[in-house]
This record gives sequence, C-alpha cells and structure tokens, in this order.
Amino acid sequence: MNTSFFGELLTSITEQGRALLDAGRGRNGEVPLVDLCEALLTGRGEASGVALAGEVLSIYQQLDGERKLSFFLSLRDQFGADLDKVRETAAALNDAPEDMSLLRRLHSVSEPRRQELIRRLNLAPGGTKALVAMRSDLLDFLREQPDLRDVDRDFEHLFSSWFNRGFLVMRRIDWSTPANILEKIIAYEAVHQIDGWEDLRRRIGLADRRLYAFFHPALVDDLLIFVEVALTREIPGAIGPILTEQRAEITAEEANTAVFYSISNCQKGLRGISFGNFLIKQVVEELRRELPSLKTFVTLSPVPGFARWLSRALKDEDGQIAAQLDEDKISALSEPDWPQDAEAAKKLETVLPHLCAHYLTREKDRNNRPLDPVARFHIGNGARLERVNWLGDLSPNGLAQAHGLMVNYLYDLKYIERNHESYAANGTVAASSAVTRLAKAVPEAKQLTPVS
Amino acid sequence: MNTSFFGELLTSITEQGRALLDAGRGRNGEVPLVDLCEALLTGRGEASGVALAGEVLSIYQQLDGERKLSFFLSLRDQFGADLDKVRETAAALNDAPEDMSLLRRLHSVSEPRRQELIRRLNLAPGGTKALVAMRSDLLDFLREQPDLRDVDRDFEHLFSSWFNRGFLVMRRIDWSTPANILEKIIAYEAVHQIDGWEDLRRRIGLADRRLYAFFHPALVDDLLIFVEVALTREIPGAIGPILTEQRAEITAEEANTAVFYSISNCQKGLRGISFGNFLIKQVVEELRRELPSLKTFVTLSPVPGFARWLSRALKDEDGQIAAQLDEDKISALSEPDWPQDAEAAKKLETVLPHLCAHYLTREKDRNNRPLDPVARFHIGNGARLERVNWLGDLSPNGLAQAHGLMVNYLYDLKYIERNHESYAANGTVAASSAVTRLAKAVPEAKQLTPVS
Amino acid sequence: MNTSFFGELLTSITEQGRALLDAGRGRNGEVPLVDLCEALLTGRGEASGVALAGEVLSIYQQLDGERKLSFFLSLRDQFGADLDKVRETAAALNDAPEDMSLLRRLHSVSEPRRQELIRRLNLAPGGTKALVAMRSDLLDFLREQPDLRDVDRDFEHLFSSWFNRGFLVMRRIDWSTPANILEKIIAYEAVHQIDGWEDLRRRIGLADRRLYAFFHPALVDDLLIFVEVALTREIPGAIGPILTEQRAEITAEEANTAVFYSISNCQKGLRGISFGNFLIKQVVEELRRELPSLKTFVTLSPVPGFARWLSRALKDEDGQIAAQLDEDKISALSEPDWPQDAEAAKKLETVLPHLCAHYLTREKDRNNRPLDPVARFHIGNGARLERVNWLGDLSPNGLAQAHGLMVNYLYDLKYIERNHESYAANGTVAASSAVTRLAKAVPEAKQLTPVS
Amino acid sequence: MNTSFFGELLTSITEQGRALLDAGRGRNGEVPLVDLCEALLTGRGEASGVALAGEVLSIYQQLDGERKLSFFLSLRDQFGADLDKVRETAAALNDAPEDMSLLRRLHSVSEPRRQELIRRLNLAPGGTKALVAMRSDLLDFLREQPDLRDVDRDFEHLFSSWFNRGFLVMRRIDWSTPANILEKIIAYEAVHQIDGWEDLRRRIGLADRRLYAFFHPALVDDLLIFVEVALTREIPGAIGPILTEQRAEITAEEANTAVFYSISNCQKGLRGISFGNFLIKQVVEELRRELPSLKTFVTLSPVPGFARWLSRALKDEDGQIAAQLDEDKISALSEPDWPQDAEAAKKLETVLPHLCAHYLTREKDRNNRPLDPVARFHIGNGARLERVNWLGDLSPNGLAQAHGLMVNYLYDLKYIERNHESYAANGTVAASSAVTRLAKAVPEAKQLTPVS
Repeated sequence: MNTSFFGELLTSITEQGRALLDAGRGRNGEVPLVDLCEALLTGRGEASGVALAGEVLSIYQQLDGERKLSFFLSLRDQFGADLDKVRETAAALNDAPEDMSLLRRLHSVSEPRRQELIRRLNLAPGGTKALVAMRSDLLDFLREQPDLRDVDRDFEHLFSSWFNRGFLVMRRIDWSTPANILEKIIAYEAVHQIDGWEDLRRRIGLADRRLYAFFHPALVDDLLIFVEVALTREIPGAIGPILTEQRAEITAEEANTAVFYSISNCQKGLRGISFGNFLIKQVVEELRRELPSLKTFVTLSPVPGFARWLSRALKDEDGQIAAQLDEDKISALSEPDWPQDAEAAKKLETVLPHLCAHYLTREKDRNNRPLDPVARFHIGNGARLERVNWLGDLSPNGLAQAHGLMVNYLYDLKYIERNHESYAANGTVAASSAVTRLAKAVPEAKQLTPVS
Repeated sequence: MNTSFFGELLTSITEQGRALLDAGRGRNGEVPLVDLCEALLTGRGEASGVALAGEVLSIYQQLDGERKLSFFLSLRDQFGADLDKVRETAAALNDAPEDMSLLRRLHSVSEPRRQELIRRLNLAPGGTKALVAMRSDLLDFLREQPDLRDVDRDFEHLFSSWFNRGFLVMRRIDWSTPANILEKIIAYEAVHQIDGWEDLRRRIGLADRRLYAFFHPALVDDLLIFVEVALTREIPGAIGPILTEQRAEITAEEANTAVFYSISNCQKGLRGISFGNFLIKQVVEELRRELPSLKTFVTLSPVPGFARWLSRALKDEDGQIAAQLDEDKISALSEPDWPQDAEAAKKLETVLPHLCAHYLTREKDRNNRPLDPVARFHIGNGARLERVNWLGDLSPNGLAQAHGLMVNYLYDLKYIERNHESYAANGTVAASSAVTRLAKAVPEAKQLTPVS
Repeated sequence: MNTSFFGELLTSITEQGRALLDAGRGRNGEVPLVDLCEALLTGRGEASGVALAGEVLSIYQQLDGERKLSFFLSLRDQFGADLDKVRETAAALNDAPEDMSLLRRLHSVSEPRRQELIRRLNLAPGGTKALVAMRSDLLDFLREQPDLRDVDRDFEHLFSSWFNRGFLVMRRIDWSTPANILEKIIAYEAVHQIDGWEDLRRRIGLADRRLYAFFHPALVDDLLIFVEVALTREIPGAIGPILTEQRAEITAEEANTAVFYSISNCQKGLRGISFGNFLIKQVVEELRRELPSLKTFVTLSPVPGFARWLSRALKDEDGQIAAQLDEDKISALSEPDWPQDAEAAKKLETVLPHLCAHYLTREKDRNNRPLDPVARFHIGNGARLERVNWLGDLSPNGLAQAHGLMVNYLYDLKYIERNHESYAANGTVAASSAVTRLAKAVPEAKQLTPVS
Repeated sequence: MNTSFFGELLTSITEQGRALLDAGRGRNGEVPLVDLCEALLTGRGEASGVALAGEVLSIYQQLDGERKLSFFLSLRDQFGADLDKVRETAAALNDAPEDMSLLRRLHSVSEPRRQELIRRLNLAPGGTKALVAMRSDLLDFLREQPDLRDVDRDFEHLFSSWFNRGFLVMRRIDWSTPANILEKIIAYEAVHQIDGWEDLRRRIGLADRRLYAFFHPALVDDLLIFVEVALTREIPGAIGPILTEQRAEITAEEANTAVFYSISNCQKGLRGISFGNFLIKQVVEELRRELPSLKTFVTLSPVPGFARWLSRALKDEDGQIAAQLDEDKISALSEPDWPQDAEAAKKLETVLPHLCAHYLTREKDRNNRPLDPVARFHIGNGARLERVNWLGDLSPNGLAQAHGLMVNYLYDLKYIERNHESYAANGTVAASSAVTRLAKAVPEAKQLTPVS
C-alpha cells in the first residue's frame, strides 16, 4: 500500500543510477551483480547503502549454482587487494624501513576489498543471516575450487569478529520454548538423532535433562550450537540408558554428575568459528550455580576416527598394531553382530579398549594434536580423557566408527588450565591413570603418516 | 556461596600460572597488565580466555589516569605489528611480486597485534561495554598524545565492524520506557537540553512527539544515538514553539510533516562510527508506514559554525565578506540583546541570512566538503538545504553560535540519491532555489584557509 | 533451605491452633478437612488465610474418590445457608414487608456459606486452578448424586463472575507458541482430532490457517477455549479438503472467507460458563482489522444430534418423518459404506438434506430452542443457518452422528442483532432461503417429546 | 478506516433496536442510560452484550455530576431486587419451611438486579477500570446520600470477589520500571510524600530500598496498593533518617531488618477491599527468600489519631487523662516549635509516650477494636506493637496528628497467628513488655464515648 522508504529509495536508484549500471549489463539483461557490489563498495550510493546491500543479497539468493560459483570467482579475482598498490608500498617500505606510516598503509592496502564489501552487505536487514548462508554455499564450492579458500578466509575473519563470544547469548531450551526453535533442535541434532517430538520431550522436558544453546542477536530465532546434558548419579558408560524411554527419572537435586552427551553445531556457514569451548564452560558455570550438589562434569563422547584408524593400522607394514589382534579377533570383528556373540565380545574386550586408549592418547597429526577430532576438541579445552567404555554405543553408527566404544572426558576445574598448558606447550594428552595403563599395553608404535 | 566457574578458573590460574606472571612484576607488586594481555594474546591460557579477559578489563578500570596512559603507550609500543616480519615479507614480495601467498601473509603480519587483543578482551562478560569505555579514555589522551592515534585506529576499525548497522536495533522511546533508559536520554541530549522529567514527558509522552533510538545487544540498556521528532502541520522556522509548554497539541494523524529537531550521539567511545544516517532513514521509513499522512521529512537544525566563520571572515584581509556588513551592523551584532531591538534586527535580517546561505553552500574544507559539521552530515546523507530561518533560536547558545539562525534540511526520497551522487562526485551542496538566491547576494569569496 | 513464610506460618498454626483442630479428628487421625474449611470460613485464622486455603486444597487433591464425594456431601449438608436464620428473617419480612433492611438481610443469610468458602479457598497460590479441577471432580459425581447440583450451582455462580469476559485475554496461537501450550491444543481438540505435531503445524503454521484462544491470568499457561480458522476463497462444504495435506495453500491476503471449522472448550471444570460466543466475535473483529479483504465469516459445523433424532423419529408412531424414507432408503442408510455406493448416495441425497434442514430449524426442546446443541449455540449467537452440505464429513464419527452431513452458520454483522432478537423473543431460527426451502419439503411434524 | 466489528454491531443496534430505545428518551433527546442498562440486563441484545456494555460505560463517563447522581439513584430505585417476588417467596417459605428449593429461590430473587448489571458492564473492554472509577464517583455521593450505600454494597461485594487475592500479581518496582507506572507511585504515595523523580529514585533505586506493589490483570498498568521498604541494621525510631539524602547506603546483604515505612492504597474505587494484609505477608516471604540475613520485619508507622484523641480526652469531665498533663505541659505542647525547646521536650517526653501507649493499647471503638486506624490494621494482621518512638516525625503533619510520635509494629512469624487469635477472640492488643509498661503509667481510664 504505502511503499517502504527503502523500497522507494531503491526505485529512485533504479530510475536514476541504474542507467549507469545498465551500461554494464550483458546482452541478455543479465544482473550485473558484480557492478552492484562495486557500487556498494565505492560508496557511490552511500546514501542508499542499506538498499543496495539488500538488492545484492536478494539477487544472489536467486542465482543458480553455476552463477553463484561465478560470483565467488569474481569475488576472488576482482575484489582482492589492489596488487599494484601493495607492491608499490612494499617497495617503498623496503627503501624506508623505519617509516611507520608506510607500515600502516601496507596493512590497509593489503586488505582484500572483499572484507569491506562483506561488511557493507551486512547493512541490509537480515544481512548477517544471508551472509552466513552465502558462506555455506561457498564451502560447498571449496572442494572443487580450493583456491576460493582466499575468499573464504575473509568470511571467516569477519565472522570470527562478529560472532565473538561477547555477542553470544546462552539460553536454556525446555518444553516451554517456542515450537519453531524446537523443530530446529530436532533438525540440527547431529550426534544422537532425535526421533520426533516425543523423543525431544524426553531430552528437554524431564527433571534430569537439560539443553542449552547459544544464540546471536542478528540471527534471531536460529541457533548456533547446542549441548544436551543428562543429570545422573554416576559417570555413564553407554548412551543407550541415557536415551531410552524406560529409565527411572531422578530430580535435579539428586544428581551429582552432569553428562554432556551431545554437542551439535547448527550453522554450516560458521564452520571454523569456535563456540563449543565457551558453551560447555558457561553451562558448567550455570549448572554449578543452580545445582550445588553437582560435583562431576563429564562428557559421554564418541570416538569417530577409531575404526578407520584401526583399519589402516592393521594394513601397516610395520605390523606393531596388527600384532595385537590375531586372526581370530580380526575375523570376530568382521562379524556385524559380534556384540551379541558373548565369546567373541569377551575376546575383543581384552584388546580393543587398549588400542582405543592408545589411539586417543598417542596417535597425533602433523601438528602434534590427537588424530581423533572429538579428542582434539575436548583435550584442547583442557579436559582429561577419563575412561574408555566397552559396548558404549551399539547403534550401527557406533559400531561402524568405533567398534561400539565410547569415552568420557572429564572437565575438572582444578586441572583444566594445567592440562591446557601442557597440551599447548608439548601436545600432552591429559588422561586418567586407568586410561594410561590401558594404552601402555600397546607398544609405542611409530606414527602412521597422518592422513590429513 | 558457591564460587563461580570462572572465579575458580581464575583462582587456578592465579595459583598455577601466576607464578609465571609474577616473575614479571615490579618491586611494588605492580599489576603486570601488559603481561596478562600478552598471556591472553598468545593463547597460553586459551582455556581460560574468558577469565583472563575479564581480569584485564577489571584491572584496567581501577587504574588511575597516569597508569591508563601508560597502558595505552604500551599498546602502542608493544602490541603493534611485528616489524621485522613485515619488512622481511615486504622484501620477499619485492623479489617475487607474483607470489599471492606473500601478499596474504603481508596483510596478516602487518595487522597490529592490538586488534586480536581487543577481540579477545571482548570475550569477557560485559566486554564490549568496557572496551567502549576504554576507548573513551583513549580519546581523552589523544589530544596530548596524538601518536596514540595508531592505537585508536584499531579500536575504530573493530568497532565499525561490531557496530555495523546490521547489528543495531531501533526502538521507540516513550513514556512507558523504563526510567533507567529515560534518565540516559536526559543526560545525553546534547542539542536542546532537557530540563528534568516533565520536560522529557513533553518530548516523548504527547501524541505529536516521538523519540527513536538505536541500541546494540551487547550494550543492553545503553543507547547509541537518538533522534527527537515533532509532528507538525508545517515546516517550522524556530525551536522555541517546538519546545514550549504552551502549545496546541495535535494528533499524529493530523500532522503532515515530521521534523527532526535533535540528534544526539550517546557514546563518546564510539566517535567516528556513523549511525545518524541510518537512524534518520529508518525513522522516516517507520513513520511513513505508521502515518501515511506524513508527506514532508525535514530537520530543524542549528548552524554551529556560522558565527565563528563570520568572525574570521570579517577579519580577512580580502574584505569581501566584511563589505557585506557595514560598521553599523557589526556594532548592532555585538549587542547581546539585539533581537529585542526591532530596528537592529530589521537591519541584520537583510544580510545575515544571505551570509549564512553563502556559508553553508559555498564555504568548504580541504576535502571540498561544507565547513559546517551539521551541513556536512545532512548534505552527505543526500538531504537538501531547504530554508534559512531568521530568529530561529534565541537561546544564548543559539545566538552565540549562529546569531540566532536555524535551517531546515529536507529529506526528499526522490532526490536523496541524486543529491548524494552529485555531492560525492563534485561536492555540490543541494539547496532549494530560495537558499541559492540568498547565497547569490554574497560575492563568490575566495575560500578562507580552512581551519582544520 | 530457608523455609517459606507461609510454610512457617503453617507450622505455627500446626503447633498452636492444631491442638484445637485435632480435637475434631476421628480415631484414625483422619484429616479433618471440613474443620479446616470451617476454620477458614469463620476467619479464626484470618491472618493465615492464605496458608489455610492452601492446606485445604492440598489435602483435597490427595483424597481418593470416596473421600472426595464425602467432602462434597459435607459441602452440601454443612455449608449451606443457616436455615433457621433464613426462616426467621422470612417471617420477620412477612410481618414487616416494607422493611428494606430485612430484605437485604434475607439475601445475605440465604447465601450458602459455600460461596464464601470457595472465595477464601481462592486466596491460595494456584487456588483458581485447583478450584476448577475440584469442580471437574464434582461434575463427575453429579450423575450419581444429582442433589450435589446445589453445590455445583455455587461453583458455577462464582466462576461465571471470575471468568467474566472482561478478564479473558485472547491470543493467537502459532508455530512460535511454546510447546507446552501447543501440546494442550493437541490434547484438547475435541471436534477434528489432531494427529500429532505435523498435523498441528498444518493448522497453525501456514499462511491460510489461524488458531485463537482465550486465556485467564489466574490459569497462566492453560487454555479456556480455542477456535480454528481456515482462510479460503469460498464457503467450504466438506471438512476433508480443509484438513488434508494435499491442498494448495493461499496467502492470507488472497482469502475472502474466514471459516470457523472447530471450537473446543478446554476446561471441564468451567462447564456452563460461556466463552465461545465472545471468542468468535473477537476473532471476527481481529481478522477484519488485519485482513480487510475478508468479507464472509462462516462456520463449517457438525450436526451432532441429527442421526439420533432421525432414528427416534423413524420409530415414532406418528410416522410423518418415516414417510419420507422408504424401506429402500432406510436399508441403504444402514450400510456402513453407503457413500461409496453412488446409487444409494444419489437416492439419499434427495431426502437427507431436507430432513436435516427440518431438524435444525424446526425441532425444538421444551424451551423452544433447537434440539441440536451446535445449532443452539450459533443460532443463539445471532448466526444464520446458511447451507446444508451433502457428504461433508465422511469420517466414521461424521457418518455416525449426522450421516455425513455438515452445515454452515453465517455470522453476518448486519443481521446478528436482528437474528438474535427474533430468536430470543420467538425462538425463530434464522435460515437462508435455500435452507428454508429444503426444510419445507418435510411436513411440519408434531414435535417429538424432547429427550432432555 | 475499516470500522471495528463491535462498532458495526453497535451501528446495527443503533439503526434497528434504537428505535425501541428512542421511545424512552425525554424531549431533549436525553440519553436513556437506564434503558440501555435495562436492555443489557434483560439480555435482549445478548449477542451484542459487549457493545452495549461499552456504550453504557462510555455514556456514563460523559455525564456531569448531577446526572451521575441521578444515574446512581436509578440504580438504587430501579435495579434492586423484585420486592414482590421476594415477599411472595418469603411467604411461601413461611408456609413450607422445609422446602429447599424455596430457599434457593429466595436467595436468587433477593439479589439486587444491580449485581448482574455490574457483571455485564464488565464485559466491555476496559470495563473493570471503568467500574472502579464509577464506584469512586459513588463514594463521593455517599456522604450526601447515605442511602446509596445499598448500591455501594453491590459494587463492594463484586469487587471483593474480582479482586480476590488469588487474582493479584505482586511486582517489585525499581528504577527499570516504566515511567508511566513510576509517575503513579509519585502521585499515589499518601504517607510520606515523594518530591519528584530524584526523591523517587532514592526510594527504589538504591541497594537498601525496595518497593512492592499489587497489580490486577484487568487494570493493566495501574496499581492497587504498594508498600515501601527500607533495609536497615536496626529498628528505626524516626522517619527523617530513612528519607534523607544524607545517609550511608548499605548493601542488601548487610541488612538484618526490613522496615515497612509506608503503605498506600491507590484506588479509591476499591475502598473496603483489603489488600494490605496480603501484600505485607507476601513481601516478607519474598524478602526472606532473597535475603536470608533478614531477621526482623517491622513497620515504622504514624499514629494518626493520637493528637485528636488526646485533645478530646483533655476536655473530658472525668479528668483522668487531663491529670497526667499539668498546665505547664499543656501550654508547652501548644507551642508550634516545642521540639526545638529542649526543656519543654524533656518535660513532654515523660508523659506523651505513656499516653500514646495507653491510647493504642486500651482505647477501643464500639467493636472493641483499637481507635487508631493504623493500629487496627496491623494488630488485626497479627502484628505486635513493639515500640513508641519519641520525636519520630517532626514534619508539620507528624506534629499535628501525633505530637511527633511514631511507633513500630513487629511482624514476628512465630506469634502472628496467636496474636491474631487473641485479638479476634478478646480484642487483646499484642504489645511488647516495654509498651505495656509505658501504658501502665496511665490509669485505666473509663472509655471515652467512641466518636464513630
């Protein structure tokens, strides 16, 4: 009815300034997205920056895959730093190495113009959400076009500033949370799938279950990451009893242990921006304040890389690992239903936990960090590998990735800092004495060549 | 009672890691603030980044002025870029000008380490607010220590990213707004002072008055900027009738004109981060949607630099401006109560508006922008100088800064873009034909040497 | 930890005053609920009225069925009016018929003491909710103990005052409503069952579907009544196309008709307190304001008493109705799947709609109101019976209660008042000319003796 | 623009049914308010009850004083019970004293028709607020027209049901409360006047000050009653140090005593509906939960009737009280500035506190309740008169009503119930031994004839 201000502004751009832009259109009247970006960036049109940014984002969303790729390639090629200026300034600095203003200038001219472009796109209403989605597209292209990584770095740089922990808001999610947020929890849960609303209610609507999430004001109703917590009376060794319908509910006050049994990142477009570390620690703080009876904070975690590593290790020429598993055990392991075979299970129990302890504490990547990504995350946070659990996850996925093993990482406030320091300095993986003993049964193998 | 998680973390840092830090303390046990910053930055202590950041900010707040200055000087000297690496990389690029990875590296190593430090300080709860206050301190030191500008540039850079318009939330302020926000309005109003709560009520609690503000989620209850609006039936020429108690209130629906009569920035620490442009335009959009009968959007603005300019111009050797004002008028103007003297006022009315129109439309600074800061703001937004108002502001301040003159800038959607473009391209100051005619009465003076 | 004020108050009652109460306990230490009620009522213990009321309600909730009944019988026998005082006052009035103070006194002494008791029970936190639940129990006993109706009348009287329309709050329910409220919608829907969360989403989460509910502040998150609305482009004749997954969604702006297709009361304990009338009218008001393109407000309603009436009518000695249906048709109707039998359906279509129109417009109860409860409701509200729909509801329930027929009642603002007046004055059932024509095909039968 | 549903309904009433109503208008087209009430009550127009109720209330509000009075007189004369029916039923009951249905009928027909009228007026949006205002008008007329008390009783009866404690919501008021509520606090404070916003801030915005209020959902932003609390480290004896700007603020945790120093009812139209009792007790509960260090809950109260009583007692022929005060003291007391005269004050201090203790604990009205209204309130709640404070309130009002004395009533949970019981049974005024001793110095005077 009464057109919006920005709508009208846009119309006025269309009528006046578009002539200018139109010159650049192809024969088919193709959308000159890059020209709009250039207009937005050069500030010709500053008065209407909001409108222009909205226009760019809206056009982008309607592009098909091929044109999106072509847009990203333009970002790579046309919106980098001005190379001539960089070289020129570098040369000048070479001549006058003490000139501080040259230094500042060097930093400024070497910033890819994409960064300012992305900042200005964020002016549009809903801009942040659209940019996160844009990066999600970009990540898809990255495999085929690894050199788009330069573009991605600029997104990552800005997102890590915008999604600084200082801007995040933690909220408890429970059964009085709006349904449009709850349905996202169902959709995003990546570790232990939620089978519909009744299953969800069991995870958030009971006295001994909690779910906490980080939100960002600019994404409104969307979540960044969430963690699911079970309040228990002991450190659990298996996921089944946590998730089952048939279990005895306790009151929150009866619990002495908080178990983090699932952490899910929700935004593919924010890959590489770390929230989990902060979320776990803030949840620990929140729970300690609310429930002083809680003494132990621990995870119940998968070992996603164990089976793959083991399979490679068995083929390794060295044979140290292979020596741990005789033919009998290897063949037992190849039976899909081996956990139902008591004898086979008994045999495997004598060796798999040792190998897992070895894998988690000693097998490292090029940067001297644990091979296993989940271990890398929790050990990096200062947690300690507390226990290896036999028959912890008998789901098909659990068997496939870790031969049914699960582990606990312990968040002990007294040691978090010390653990982290040792890890940062020497790559030491903090582990309980029980786990250390388990690992010792396996000879200190020479490291496999890391896969990635 | 039950100490907080981060509190305990901090204790564990204190007990363990502090030994390390303690080594660096002076004889008096002085706070090694810089060492804490270094620890935060190097990521030794990443697990406890939130706690460390909080500690740094809390110590900073308790410093006296001298130590704050000394802290900023350390930021300047010890947290810049690693110069050797920059020079080295610049040299390498000189040798291999086509190596893109060197280019990227150059940008990265030339970033002052302060930037990452500031990002990490923002991890602390309340970090953003504390950093804005920190920069406010910094700005105070800047006069005496202009070379701290390098440090300030890093704050400014990050703030302009964090306070991107996409993260701001506009709210209408009215009489049902919490008192702790309203008292800030009273404190922050910088243009036409608010004399207590009853005066405030007249500006926000009546049907034909509005006040809109921008908030940022991380600053919670604090405001960034606000604008006061009067809904009227004509373009007003004076501020008195807007602010007086004795006026006839109209309903919002009866109005056809929205008058922006005061814009106040609230956060000294955010100087240089521009919000006003966006706020005015979003308010226009909001008002148009709510009140379709509004047809004209206009300011009632001061001319803060007019009297100063005129006084300089009168002394100028050239004498072109001086020629406009005979002795008689100059002496009239020096009488503090001249507006009460009908004859004097009549004389001055024949010349002051012309000079003002001239001043606003033709007197420029080095960058070819209007000398007058308010004109620079609105003209830069694409508004048009619509009218010069005789006896618009007879307050002591109004007389002192602009000999009582006020002006209107018109925000006309159809022309905002065009005005802005001409201004950006050629420095053209958009003005109504009436104003242009006024200015023409004054000879195109050679430009005074700009003051700043 | 730190016991609550009322908790302590209660303890002090227990220790001091309970001695007094204890005297009244039976040998088994049975809870002297009636004595507590007496204490609450006589105001001995006014200082602790809130605590006492809470105690009574809490004890009541733990009683088994038998004791609840016995409690209600006590309410009937021991908490009525003081009969002697009533008789005495009546006699005095008989002697002095002009004494106004006697009249006032008569009203006061004839009020059952239960009413004040119920008012005081409402002092407890959560009292209103507990009292609504208490009446729900009472209604269950009413069948077996019809003389408890006296007790029920007092609940009803107070509830109709407390749940006055002036205290109700209407809220739109949609997909951003908290899940704990949504699950109640699923549980309470009484007309067209909701099959889980995805079905619910189809009724509240789409652009052309709405759901509105009344809440009462004292019941917090619980609903009183809700109505489901479909926005359509014509008056629908069947419920299937409204509820199906396979339908073309339209925007709200495209609709010209709002269809009320389900109204559900949620609180059994509020039986007899009328909300539906007000809810429908407020929803019409809300929708008209939001969507000016809506021109028609109509229901799609069941005819719950039709089949039962028809079956009785066929057995009636008079035989006028029976004469409408030959053996052939009656036997067709007895086939469960007759709607699938095109020929049978064709035959029945020539007579069932006429009989239904007759039933709804002419068959009345003792008070000259329509026999059909849904007709009674909408006609009483001033709506008009607009259309009888053939094969409108082929669900087992729809076939069983109305041989698949559904009807539309039209809420036409211009006629609501007139319709209501004629109905109130003469029992006239407002009907469209089409419906009236249908009914005319059936002879004006003598009324069956009403069932209830 | 698009007229509201109820607006249209009303129009349709106007056009159709108004003809009917118009017949009843006087020659001057006077508003037939009584006829509208009759229409609302008889249910002719039930479909449009909401609209009718709104119309009645809106017309009422525009009446001048004289017509309002005439409306209330009509309520008295035309909307009472149907006397003939009452008499008839009373006679029938006389003949058949065991007929329970006659009893029920008697209660029903003796209810003034006003009650149902008021209930139906409450259907209108904003009805409750309008009815409370209507009763406020009625109370003004009551002095001159005491027989309107019958009408008032019906308002009072319904209001005490609607404003049942179970429907009230307690909220803490602080400096983040909306200004439109805060300004009501300033306006309503009846005991110790609030001098503008800065004074208000001292009462709600500091760590050792609290203010709590009761709200009712149907009155939205308006308050029913509020109490002001000071958190202190001892029982205060004077109001000055509580209200002064120059005092040392303490933290809430440092306090051991909560002092209720002002309670104000806000709604004249709710006179006689008691909230204060519940508010004080709920605030005690809230404070105990939040601040376990609070041990003493006490008031600092005025003695509003002391000076008046003393002046009467001195004139009493008996002379027992007069004997306490020699000429010298009486003349000292007549000096307006006697508190500044050390000698006079010293003399008076030996007798006034005794007389005050006597007045509060022994001087009773016809119902054996304390003469002093504030004493009546707190003693009735179960509090104990703890202390009489010399020179507690030296404001003109404090001197005029109580010769500067103030008292403390103690709310001690352990004794509240017992105190209340003794008071209810025997009129015993609970008092500390210190107060009792003070009173004993005064001979047990024969009671003055109570004034009212």
